[in-house]
Amino acid sequence: MNILVTNDDGVLAPGLLALAQAMRPLGNLSILAPDRNWSGSGHVKTLDRPLRVKEVHLEDGTLAYASDGAPSDCVALAMLGFFDHKFDLVVSGINPMPNLGHDVTYSGTVTAAMEAVIWGVPGIAVSLGSVENGLAVEDYQPASQVAAVVVSESVQHKLGSDILLNVNIPLLPMEQIKGFRTTRQGLRVYRDRLDRRMDPRGKPYYWIGGDAPTGIPEDGSDIGALTDGYVSINPLQLDLTAYPVFQVLNNWKLAL
Amino acid sequence: MNILVTNDDGVLAPGLLALAQAMRPLGNLSILAPDRNWSGSGHVKTLDRPLRVKEVHLEDGTLAYASDGAPSDCVALAMLGFFDHKFDLVVSGINPMPNLGHDVTYSGTVTAAMEAVIWGVPGIAVSLGSVENGLAVEDYQPASQVAAVVVSESVQHKLGSDILLNVNIPLLPMEQIKGFRTTRQGLRVYRDRLDRRMDPRGKPYYWIGGDAPTGIPEDGSDIGALTDGYVSINPLQLDLTAYPVFQVLNNWKLAL
Repeated sequence: MNILVTNDDGVLAPGLLALAQAMRPLGNLSILAPDRNWSGSGHVKTLDRPLRVKEVHLEDGTLAYASDGAPSDCVALAMLGFFDHKFDLVVSGINPMPNLGHDVTYSGTVTAAMEAVIWGVPGIAVSLGSVENGLAVEDYQPASQVAAVVVSESVQHKLGSDILLNVNIPLLPMEQIKGFRTTRQGLRVYRDRLDRRMDPRGKPYYWIGGDAPTGIPEDGSDIGALTDGYVSINPLQLDLTAYPVFQVLNNWKLAL
Repeated sequence: MNILVTNDDGVLAPGLLALAQAMRPLGNLSILAPDRNWSGSGHVKTLDRPLRVKEVHLEDGTLAYASDGAPSDCVALAMLGFFDHKFDLVVSGINPMPNLGHDVTYSGTVTAAMEAVIWGVPGIAVSLGSVENGLAVEDYQPASQVAAVVVSESVQHKLGSDILLNVNIPLLPMEQIKGFRTTRQGLRVYRDRLDRRMDPRGKPYYWIGGDAPTGIPEDGSDIGALTDGYVSINPLQLDLTAYPVFQVLNNWKLAL
């Protein structure tokens, strides 16, 4: 099995190292990830400039490749033949913050997995954390073990050509992780505020500021699972069509 | 009705001017769009740098604002209070190329409308073109009339808090546009190829090259409607959960 590992925090992020080490026993590993942090960068296809790729070595000596493109560009490069072989699976992460609810279209971690699915290869995004807080202790060991369990099982089953998995793992010691839940996308509560400041020359600039997002921990949702100490496995599809709305739209009076 | 107009081609693009002129009779118009082309940039939330906003004037003298953020950043700035008033609708476009099938998560035009919906405001993305080709003649007049018809009708109906509309209008004279179809997201056929080149110093760089995407013109799909000369109205939801996959996932043997 040929596995591509990527992320959105940059190739030298500790979460990628942990994920790569967990994936190595499962197949033939290739690593191609951005050369810098692309968090919140969305699903990018870079067509207006060429991409560079350079060799780097992870902390444990593993050969990896770093590109100046987005996470989804890294996946596209690999799918289009950068490595001269095909891939059976793309795993993205481990992101140090959870990707929940409406985060999924912003997230470089998740959109990397989307890109894989668009090219016909299963994609799994792996993120770590609690709903309200960032990563307190950078311990990716439990999450990387969990990722190996999910990936090992995923290769036994076909999910459909349009499906990726968005996996969020609670930031807990292994013995406190309660198990796995299949979840739906929950409701994030974004708390962004516009922060208008003046530069030294008296001209305004604007930060998207405010507090980190929280979420509504409903039963059955990704946010609920993480809050309860369970690994959330949220299957996502790339067909965003809102079929229940057809009935409403078909009653519209549209005339040219 | 307070309407925000934005786009992903840059505030001075002719498609934005045409859209703004079509929206002006429908409400109180504000324009905030990127200062450059962000095509294929995805759903971005810029948190690692502040954003600048400058006043510009469109070709017809209309006051507008240009930001150095992505289309979705422009929408966030407006939703978070840049204009000191709330919005009832965000309309994005008119994009000179259609946004069909899996384009929707890449598209700055569509992700601007997604951002509106995340902030609780209806969002409509408007794009122009044919499935296979780019914009042959830059005539946005039929499309802007069609956009006005769709927007006028949309404000009479509530679609649900999670729903945006992805509208694609065939590049045809008005009398040849056959009408409207409610559609599902179709299947794009991407034809990207990796184009490896050498720079003048003998180092490789990589273009994502190849041919423009085509699509499968299935009945009922956005691509089918456009191919048949109809306006495609594809309702999209931000819940990407693949509910039919739950049954498969619940049979997985996952153990820590």
